[in-house]
Amino acid sequence: MSPDERAIRDVISTWLTASAAGDNATVLSLMSDDVLFLVAGRPPFGKKEFASGQGALSTHRIEASSDVREVVVSGDLAYARSQLTVAMTPVTGGKTLRRSGPVLSIFRRLDGGRWVLSRDANLLTVEESR
Amino acid sequence: MSPDERAIRDVISTWLTASAAGDNATVLSLMSDDVLFLVAGRPPFGKKEFASGQGALSTHRIEASSDVREVVVSGDLAYARSQLTVAMTPVTGGKTLRRSGPVLSIFRRLDGGRWVLSRDANLLTVEESR
Repeated sequence: MSPDERAIRDVISTWLTASAAGDNATVLSLMSDDVLFLVAGRPPFGKKEFASGQGALSTHRIEASSDVREVVVSGDLAYARSQLTVAMTPVTGGKTLRRSGPVLSIFRRLDGGRWVLSRDANLLTVEESR
Repeated sequence: MSPDERAIRDVISTWLTASAAGDNATVLSLMSDDVLFLVAGRPPFGKKEFASGQGALSTHRIEASSDVREVVVSGDLAYARSQLTVAMTPVTGGKTLRRSGPVLSIFRRLDGGRWVLSRDANLLTVEESR
């Protein structure tokens, strides 16, 4: 595994750990200022809207796991394709909502050499209850 | 606009024109053999499944338009972000189904220098009837 692929996988795992801990500052540090999130049913949104959404999530306990299927790097650009599962449980108790699906993410290398998320297409759907 | 960005935009427009004309051979020539399509609610699928799906579409007239919002190239890797609208009308007549949404696409430059689609995350949703 190349150092760049390792660095990008580290960004993804740091993201998940920080997100589970409610450490929004760390999560926000892992994306570019011009990041765009693409999800179904609404226009692409940026860092500010992402941050607002994170605040709203404090009512839930979040457990996420990502199976990174591939990372491809070329110069200062890379993409990662993952299979993501997110379980959200109300902190007051109640039913867990589980969503899963593929994610296609673009990473950029900043001038300082650090990799950050730049574009993210999230295809998660709600899993059927079993 | 760089020659690479122009070439990638040409792949996208050739794709839409060929798709509308039912020219599946041309569409298939614009993707890598290991292409993967990511859509919501099913596992990523490849060229063979894409080709099967195209055959099934011969019952519909397809009109698609793509607004390419950005193309970013680094070496032999690139991504394009588009807003896609697809209208499908049964050839026997009937109601048009219109879907739209963002698409995040990865392109690779082949050894011969030609750009082809390599990964495609399609976030289209059905538009409300008006």
